[in-house]
Amino acid sequence: MYENMFRVDRNSHESLQKQIRRQIAIAIINRQLPLHQPLPSIRKLAGELNVSINTLALAYEALKQDGFICSRDRSGFFINQDIYQEHSPSEKYADLIPPNKENSFDYQNFFLSRSYNLPRISKPSDCLVRYNYPFICGLVDPTLFPIASWRECIRDSVNVIEVKNWAADFSRIDDPLLLEQLVQRVLSKRGLVAHPDEVLITIGGQQALYIAIKTLLREGSTFAMEDPGYPDVMNIALMESMNIRTLPVDHKGLIISDEIKDCDCIYTTPSHHFPTTVTMPLERRQALLELTRQSNTFIIEDDYEAEISFNDTPPPALKSLDNWGNVIYTGSLSKSLLPGLRIGYMVGDRDFIREAKALRHHIIRHPPVNNQRSVALFMQRGYFDRFVTKLTREYKQRSQIMAQSLEHYLPGSAVAPSFGGGSFWVKLPEPIDALELQRLCKQDSVWFEPGGAMFADSEQNKNYLRLGYSSINQSLIPEGIAIISKHVNNLLNA
Amino acid sequence: MYENMFRVDRNSHESLQKQIRRQIAIAIINRQLPLHQPLPSIRKLAGELNVSINTLALAYEALKQDGFICSRDRSGFFINQDIYQEHSPSEKYADLIPPNKENSFDYQNFFLSRSYNLPRISKPSDCLVRYNYPFICGLVDPTLFPIASWRECIRDSVNVIEVKNWAADFSRIDDPLLLEQLVQRVLSKRGLVAHPDEVLITIGGQQALYIAIKTLLREGSTFAMEDPGYPDVMNIALMESMNIRTLPVDHKGLIISDEIKDCDCIYTTPSHHFPTTVTMPLERRQALLELTRQSNTFIIEDDYEAEISFNDTPPPALKSLDNWGNVIYTGSLSKSLLPGLRIGYMVGDRDFIREAKALRHHIIRHPPVNNQRSVALFMQRGYFDRFVTKLTREYKQRSQIMAQSLEHYLPGSAVAPSFGGGSFWVKLPEPIDALELQRLCKQDSVWFEPGGAMFADSEQNKNYLRLGYSSINQSLIPEGIAIISKHVNNLLNA
Repeated sequence: MYENMFRVDRNSHESLQKQIRRQIAIAIINRQLPLHQPLPSIRKLAGELNVSINTLALAYEALKQDGFICSRDRSGFFINQDIYQEHSPSEKYADLIPPNKENSFDYQNFFLSRSYNLPRISKPSDCLVRYNYPFICGLVDPTLFPIASWRECIRDSVNVIEVKNWAADFSRIDDPLLLEQLVQRVLSKRGLVAHPDEVLITIGGQQALYIAIKTLLREGSTFAMEDPGYPDVMNIALMESMNIRTLPVDHKGLIISDEIKDCDCIYTTPSHHFPTTVTMPLERRQALLELTRQSNTFIIEDDYEAEISFNDTPPPALKSLDNWGNVIYTGSLSKSLLPGLRIGYMVGDRDFIREAKALRHHIIRHPPVNNQRSVALFMQRGYFDRFVTKLTREYKQRSQIMAQSLEHYLPGSAVAPSFGGGSFWVKLPEPIDALELQRLCKQDSVWFEPGGAMFADSEQNKNYLRLGYSSINQSLIPEGIAIISKHVNNLLNA
Repeated sequence: MYENMFRVDRNSHESLQKQIRRQIAIAIINRQLPLHQPLPSIRKLAGELNVSINTLALAYEALKQDGFICSRDRSGFFINQDIYQEHSPSEKYADLIPPNKENSFDYQNFFLSRSYNLPRISKPSDCLVRYNYPFICGLVDPTLFPIASWRECIRDSVNVIEVKNWAADFSRIDDPLLLEQLVQRVLSKRGLVAHPDEVLITIGGQQALYIAIKTLLREGSTFAMEDPGYPDVMNIALMESMNIRTLPVDHKGLIISDEIKDCDCIYTTPSHHFPTTVTMPLERRQALLELTRQSNTFIIEDDYEAEISFNDTPPPALKSLDNWGNVIYTGSLSKSLLPGLRIGYMVGDRDFIREAKALRHHIIRHPPVNNQRSVALFMQRGYFDRFVTKLTREYKQRSQIMAQSLEHYLPGSAVAPSFGGGSFWVKLPEPIDALELQRLCKQDSVWFEPGGAMFADSEQNKNYLRLGYSSINQSLIPEGIAIISKHVNNLLNA
């Protein structure tokens, strides 16, 4: 295999020996060569590359000197284990890669104004391991997850018949069992009457939002969202070069104004506003539907965390009141199952879903078939409902402890979410900068999300936090809030 | 739960009784109500909807008359099982849904020129079950797949520690084990020296192509692809409103011409041209790299089916010769594992990958974590290499039988692919219309892909077929080709 990985350029200014040496070093730095297999012998590789044995012997000797390889008597040359154990050897040998950066395409400059440079909420992926008090949002407490039931479902989704089915092309058909379970167990609780042809499975709620925005809008369309609101949606709209407006929010959610009439589409989170957690009352929902119908404005309703409602009769989704069809509903199982599975869904008119499915085909063909079936079985066997009940009970307790702790340590800073969900929105006195507070709290092993990033003007809204409780143990909540409070007071008295 | 699903509008012209009747009927047609649970009692639902008991009793009676529900003594009303057993009850009761289509948003008209209306290659999802001779491309023969090993890997990927990991947010980190295995076992065989930071995991090869096109181009950019070529790529480019050119292909693949210089990006399949299967020789690859470097043209190299090479030393990927960095390499494990898992990947400069990852975040956040880990284990334990060896051996035999059968029944119509892969490209005499031929062959349980859809001008290229052999048993190949040949001769003599 090595003749494909290493090659020599006889027109290069670099000597053959140095070319070979550099290429092998890079492959080792990349950890691309298996650790416990000998490198090809000098004679063999020299023959494959058509260079002299002497040239290759010198290259190997230099690699040995530099600590990349070592020789073992009679067994030949091996990679030096230490190199693979170093956390990031590439930094140590930075001069080797890339070989001649000035001679390569400048992507950094090319991408200056693209996706990477958009602001994103950053959640450390090792958050649960690294912090004792992880007030992180959007993750599921792994200690609550019924692993045995889940293993049973994935095992049963991999029998011979199922695997046979996976071999097919599923870009036009979502798993019928998953669609059936979704409409019966999830959508009906939100008051949604939907035929399976009116539902599309997506890679998490994120893809449902992306597809909704891409399908309904074009470059230059006017798109509005709540302020504060979900920054990822802002980013999708920015990436697609829309005219973006932000609309104010009060204690009843999105404020209905004539400005909405000028928009092609608005994004809203009526049942449980992101990030303030307030619920939009029925009259306002009806007014919103009436207004958007007059102005031909689409509504993207993000019903995130809807499964986790503390209310026996939670307010139904806005979509359930939509007789005209301009509401596109999105949701996901990331909050009630596992976010890593990436199962989301969208609901709309069947002609809309047909188009959304065609767009989905262009983007990914279809979501992985095995996960669709495992989740469908998990629902069909009742495990999902049981897990949601358990999660809801647990979260309700945590929410009460959160409310008590916040009232005790940071009185008046937060209103307990009436809908449910997994987070509190906290407003601190104005001089507090949540980013500064986060830096201090991290030192005491507390992690939370600063709220500024959820505002169009983050500079003017530095004094907000979002405290998630879905991943933190009940007993740790008061201590965690006490630590935050301690730093808040220190900052106020500084 | 029913008060959320059903509601009455007292301002409607429709009577309350009829509103309730229609809503329950739709929920039943949607299969949204659990079959073996009683409907709410007349008294209960009347109370919830705040209508008279008499109104509700009339509604239930009408539903019973229409066959939607039945009453069982003392247990109340149940859904009529027959309704759920009908294949598509919605057609029978089409007048009920949607209730008043003239009063709903007209998506069909709104989407007239969007994704759904783009031409797509249609593969029946039940192809393997429905046809005895499935000459279908891109599917894996499920009888060859090592299910026991795969089950072991998915089982081991769902232990407590792994599930804990899934709870985290993985939009910035792909599974390190999968990246390591990919560079060591898959990319190295294609001559690619790549650091894990230069690799991105995607939802199949499709998403790799979508991300590459979206990242490198903007509306109005000039994009070129091979003709014939991969229609899905044409569709992505059309959807993103690019200027699209098609470039001719000969027996050495894409023809290098100065026209390439005018393009911002070209899409090519050099190692194994889609759909003709020819391989681009080294000199032409070098000329292509030289030319595109001069003109600042990006190359998207689709190395599809690259794992299945019959050659002991297959030609390395174009990307392996790319010193400047303008080549973005895409591939997938759909042909060598299971397409339903949707594992693809792309390789490029690390600044490019950083941007591609940010775009991926906007589209889907990240690919499902569980599948990444299962595939990584499948590779680490050597099952993947063993399966690819088995597949390649089997496909090589099938390819030989294909070549012999085609030479015997349709002499001169096809050249055996030198690279490998899973299909033959067949040119029939000009009067033959492959769509007509397909219709006739289907009657004899033979399925194949007509080739016209792969050309920019499908009208002028009706006489091509693509015959996949990855899903057809060896012993059936000669019979299948004989049937095609019979119909070809009938058409020629007609």
